[in-house]
Amino acid sequence: MGDVLRVALAGLGTVGAGVIKLIDANRSLIERRAGRPIEIVAVSARDRNRDRGVDLGRFDWVDDSTALATHQGVDVVVELIGGSDGPALVLARNSIAQGRAFVTANKAMIAHHGLELAGAAEAANVPFKYEAAVAGGIPVIKGLREGAAANEISGVFGILNGTCNYILSTMESAGRDFADVLSEAQALGYAEADPSFDIDGVDAAHKLSILASLAFGTAIDFDGVDIRGIRHVIAADIVEAQALGHRIRLVGMASANEQGLFQRVQPCLVPLEHPLAHVTGSLNAVVAEGNFVGRLFLQGRGAGEGPTASAVVADLIDIARGETGPAFAMPVASLAPAGRAPSGGRMGRSYLRFVVADRAGVLAEITAAMRDAGVSIESLSQRGVTAEGAAVVALVTHECPEANVSHALALLDGSESLKAAPMLMPILEV
Amino acid sequence: MGDVLRVALAGLGTVGAGVIKLIDANRSLIERRAGRPIEIVAVSARDRNRDRGVDLGRFDWVDDSTALATHQGVDVVVELIGGSDGPALVLARNSIAQGRAFVTANKAMIAHHGLELAGAAEAANVPFKYEAAVAGGIPVIKGLREGAAANEISGVFGILNGTCNYILSTMESAGRDFADVLSEAQALGYAEADPSFDIDGVDAAHKLSILASLAFGTAIDFDGVDIRGIRHVIAADIVEAQALGHRIRLVGMASANEQGLFQRVQPCLVPLEHPLAHVTGSLNAVVAEGNFVGRLFLQGRGAGEGPTASAVVADLIDIARGETGPAFAMPVASLAPAGRAPSGGRMGRSYLRFVVADRAGVLAEITAAMRDAGVSIESLSQRGVTAEGAAVVALVTHECPEANVSHALALLDGSESLKAAPMLMPILEV
Repeated sequence: MGDVLRVALAGLGTVGAGVIKLIDANRSLIERRAGRPIEIVAVSARDRNRDRGVDLGRFDWVDDSTALATHQGVDVVVELIGGSDGPALVLARNSIAQGRAFVTANKAMIAHHGLELAGAAEAANVPFKYEAAVAGGIPVIKGLREGAAANEISGVFGILNGTCNYILSTMESAGRDFADVLSEAQALGYAEADPSFDIDGVDAAHKLSILASLAFGTAIDFDGVDIRGIRHVIAADIVEAQALGHRIRLVGMASANEQGLFQRVQPCLVPLEHPLAHVTGSLNAVVAEGNFVGRLFLQGRGAGEGPTASAVVADLIDIARGETGPAFAMPVASLAPAGRAPSGGRMGRSYLRFVVADRAGVLAEITAAMRDAGVSIESLSQRGVTAEGAAVVALVTHECPEANVSHALALLDGSESLKAAPMLMPILEV
Repeated sequence: MGDVLRVALAGLGTVGAGVIKLIDANRSLIERRAGRPIEIVAVSARDRNRDRGVDLGRFDWVDDSTALATHQGVDVVVELIGGSDGPALVLARNSIAQGRAFVTANKAMIAHHGLELAGAAEAANVPFKYEAAVAGGIPVIKGLREGAAANEISGVFGILNGTCNYILSTMESAGRDFADVLSEAQALGYAEADPSFDIDGVDAAHKLSILASLAFGTAIDFDGVDIRGIRHVIAADIVEAQALGHRIRLVGMASANEQGLFQRVQPCLVPLEHPLAHVTGSLNAVVAEGNFVGRLFLQGRGAGEGPTASAVVADLIDIARGETGPAFAMPVASLAPAGRAPSGGRMGRSYLRFVVADRAGVLAEITAAMRDAGVSIESLSQRGVTAEGAAVVALVTHECPEANVSHALALLDGSESLKAAPMLMPILEV
């Protein structure tokens, strides 16, 4: 066996404690697989005294997490502090500058500064890994970087936020409203007190921007992600989707063509025959479509102590084995700065839902707007009337550029027939 | 960019031609990802003149495939000949002895000689890779070797043979009989003229034995796989399974406990809530359950030109990047020689189907045997009577050691009430 790989751990929240527990529980197995022992030697967190269910007395304690970059006798720094900037970023920069391998679960930091850090790691010839940053325990970074590496990828689709998937799945199985399910998720600890990063799609967008870079060989472009969350999905949408043989999922989707990169996070209608439709509860999943491999589908637990720790330690094992290379599959200088494909250029079928006044002529108004915008209607339903006397109209378009659908909605903007903003969701194809 | 990685290709069947097509189609992308060009320089096959849809004139042609081991200017030998012994094995041994990296899609050879070859590769310090040997384009070798490396794996389950899954899926969707669907699959080229390797479970067992070694850190023990194929699944089984909310899949399953390694390939009832139930047509899928990551599920195309070539070239990219290490996740000497857990020790619920004479007293005879063997019955149905005047009795047991169920069947052995051998299938739990 080789020398011990000595690890410093910054951040002792759920995931940090999980990494300690995992290394304790699976120590001998890890040593056999990694070819050498992996041991934590130093830790840092805000609160030294909180009970985390693990014995910290055997590790060096460092008050200032950024000091781990220079702490003596450390081979790898693991950053589990979080936040796109601040101490996490300082620690990353300094660790790499010190020639230390760096592992992180921090999707926000990677989405915003990943290329800078990967470039620095390349220049310093140190490993830089982040499997835990996307989809928790599912090896999606490895799957794209290595497993599908021989393929030109035409599209990558993912359920990348477990909180949203839990909320949508529960709305579906329990027939309940968004706000109600969100409150329960918060009470159960599945959703944050301030849930906006999750439910408004920002967290999923961080992850999508990372997957897109790996899939298409393009520079990470988080600002290019068109982000729409799940706040405006109502119980009636779930019912309509079910009637159409679909489920609603928050899907991060990216593709690349001559016009550039298309990146969007948005609730979508997913047909039951599509693997993403069967991703329930807080699971995560990623679909990648390659020109030789066809469709790959990877599913698992996307967050939490165990799965995230599993991904962090997988990175440590890769480092212990010396199986590391360019973090984004190719040298940062080779990543093409992708243009942005116009988001409205998406071709496909769409679901539209209107909450309308229950009176004659409303359907005629809506269908006229569709006609005028060149949108052809595949099906239309008008079900139930709410307590407030409003009706729900749901329609499915034939395949067309999404910009046409947006144009139709613009034509209806300000109409007194509409009692709420319309909801537009893409329909995925099998 | 670094030096060209020069590849010799032995075997130009579907997959071999696919590797050439893939490298031609994705050449510049592969070079960017691998950090250096990957080029085929020499090829060998039985028939030089067959039209494979690719231009072979640019490669050195070698009549004797085993001569590729010493052919000048080759860095990596790719073996796509097939067969557990013969020229494939000679080529493997000689290539490694020559210090050349070796890549294969040959599950039979790995199942029988993988440890010898991996040991030789270790001693010679040359990469030895076989991603394409299991589940085609799905990166399951990488998923277990690296992605889940931090976990103690409690079980691995897979749909590992696309032909069987196609037959079972088609029996299900079309309500047709095994023999009928098999003939059609042969006519369509989905099944071999001699289909026994597939339908009797041998191919899946080869793959399972490889996955078990990676999952549990044990020596490959192909002879320890308890193998039962799908030949005796009848249309009535599909109907009964559906009535129970299940689908029938040929599942390779392996687990390890104090008693040793349990490895079996057998048709099983899979509940609709289990991800393997949604693996349809010729898809493959693998579930691995780890003590920190939880359940990982990987699905994709398990065979054919494109997916298999994708896995072969992924291995070449790993080699080009220098990201290689012990083939079975740890040095061969570290792989524990696992004992074999008694196959009947499996705890779980079972499905039993009898084709019986349609007369009074038969159910009493069956249920008495169950009682005498200590098997408790959860449900029982007797549906339809065949043209031959036989009835189908299907029952589901409560959880018990499978040996008890086998004992009950032994008690019924030779009974004149039974018109055919009974069918026993494990029921997977969600």
